[in-house]
Amino acid sequence: MAANVLDTVMLFGDSITQGSWDLNGIGARLSFVYARKLDVLNRGLSGYNTEWAIPVFEQLLQVFAKKEEQPYVPAVRLLTIWFGANDSVLPSERQHVPLAQFIANLKHLITMVKSPSSEYYSPKTRILLISPPPVNTYQRSAELVSRDPPRNCDREFGFTKLYAEAVVKTAQEEGAAVVDVWTVLWEAAGKDERALSAYLLDGLHLNAKGYELAYNAINESIEQSYPEIHHQNLQYAIPRHDELDPSNIRESVRARRLV
Amino acid sequence: MAANVLDTVMLFGDSITQGSWDLNGIGARLSFVYARKLDVLNRGLSGYNTEWAIPVFEQLLQVFAKKEEQPYVPAVRLLTIWFGANDSVLPSERQHVPLAQFIANLKHLITMVKSPSSEYYSPKTRILLISPPPVNTYQRSAELVSRDPPRNCDREFGFTKLYAEAVVKTAQEEGAAVVDVWTVLWEAAGKDERALSAYLLDGLHLNAKGYELAYNAINESIEQSYPEIHHQNLQYAIPRHDELDPSNIRESVRARRLV
Repeated sequence: MAANVLDTVMLFGDSITQGSWDLNGIGARLSFVYARKLDVLNRGLSGYNTEWAIPVFEQLLQVFAKKEEQPYVPAVRLLTIWFGANDSVLPSERQHVPLAQFIANLKHLITMVKSPSSEYYSPKTRILLISPPPVNTYQRSAELVSRDPPRNCDREFGFTKLYAEAVVKTAQEEGAAVVDVWTVLWEAAGKDERALSAYLLDGLHLNAKGYELAYNAINESIEQSYPEIHHQNLQYAIPRHDELDPSNIRESVRARRLV
Repeated sequence: MAANVLDTVMLFGDSITQGSWDLNGIGARLSFVYARKLDVLNRGLSGYNTEWAIPVFEQLLQVFAKKEEQPYVPAVRLLTIWFGANDSVLPSERQHVPLAQFIANLKHLITMVKSPSSEYYSPKTRILLISPPPVNTYQRSAELVSRDPPRNCDREFGFTKLYAEAVVKTAQEEGAAVVDVWTVLWEAAGKDERALSAYLLDGLHLNAKGYELAYNAINESIEQSYPEIHHQNLQYAIPRHDELDPSNIRESVRARRLV
C-alpha cells in the first residue's frame, strides 16, 4: 500500500457517478461515512458508456492497477460499477452500445477483477454493480427541446429498463452484489413515469432525493453482502482523539492498519 | 506518482474538516469541482489540536510522505491546514494548546513542507491555512448544558479570536495563502455573536450556510494565490467523452498527465 493514501472505495461509472459529490450524492455520502477508514475516489466519466470505459480501466493507471503493481498502490476494497444510462441511448446515437455488448462489457469488467488469470486480478476487491435509473422521457424531452438547437428525445423508457434488468441479471450470474436503483426509484415513484421527476433532475440524472434513495440501498447492500467493509465495521486508521495518551502522544498516535 | 490515484488535494484539520463531506461542506464541494482532475482526500481528525496532529503528520504515512517516498506516491498539490478550534479551548481543558505553542506548531507544519532541508520537503505542494470559525458561546453553552452530565462552556469568544488572528499572521509571515474564515463568518453575522447561529450548527461547527461561505472564500483564495491549481485551470486527466474518436477508442483514451 502506498504511503499517504488509505485503501480505497472506487466509484466507476458515468456522469451519475461523477456528479455524486454534489447534491449530497453517493460520492459525498460514502466519503463522509468512510472518513478516516477508506479514501473514496471519483472515477465517474460523464458521457461514457461501457465500451469507452473499458479501455480507460485497462489502459489508464488512474483507475485500476495490474496485479504486479497492486502491492505498491492503495488497494481497491470496493469497486462500484454504475453504467447503462449512456449505453442505453437509442441506436441512432453515438453513445449507444447494443444490449448484448453491454452485458459482455459488464462481464468483462467483473472478470478482469475476479479471475485469477486476469492481469488485473484483485482478490481484495469487492464489486458492487448498480443499475441505471429509470428515464422520465417527459422530463428528458422537455430538457432536450429547450436546447439550441432543439433535440429529439434520445432515450426510451422501456429501452433503459432492459439495460437495468441486464445489470441485475449479470451481477447475479457473476456472483457480484447489485443495487437495483432502477427498481428503487420506479417503486418510489409509484410506477408512474411522470412521477419520477421527484427523483430526477432532468429525466436522466438523479436529484438529491434520488441520490438519497440510491445511497440507502447501496449502504444496505454493502452491509448485507460485504459486511467486512461496511463503514460501521471498520476502525479509524488514525486513533480517536480520546484514545490518545497526552503524556505520550508519539507512542499513542499509531496507524491501525486496515486488514 | 502511484498508479490508480491522481495527484491530490489534502484537507488536514480537525472535525470541521473531517465533517466537511456532509452538509455540502468544503470536502464535498472541492471533490466535486476537482472531479477527474485531482483526488481530494479527507485528513480531518475530529477532536485533534495541532500538538496531536503533528505526530500524525510526521509518523503516519497516511498523511504526508517523506522526500524519498514522494516519487512513489500521489503528489499533494494543495494542502489545507485548518486547526485552532480545539487548540483554543480554555486552558483547563485537555485539548488546550497555549497560543505561542499553537503558532510554533503551525510554523513547524509549514516548514516541514516548505523547507528544502526538511525530510518532508515538497516543492510541488501549495499550502493554504484556514482560521477557525468564531465561537457562538450562547449556542455552545446551550449544547453543553444539555449533555448528561451537563458541562460548562469550554470556549470563549475572544480566546478563539486570538487563535484565528494568529493563523492569519503566521500564514503571512510564512508566505502561505490564508483564508480567514473567522472574519468571513463574523462579518456575515453583522459582528453579532448570537447571529452566528445562522452559520454554525452548535456554536462551534459550521452548518451548510457556513460551509458555503468558507468554500467561496477558499475557492477565491486558490484562484488568486495558486491559479495553476485552480480547478478551472486544470484539464481532465481522462479525456471528455466528446473528445474520443469512436473509431479508435484505445488510441484516443490517453491519460493527460497533470504537470
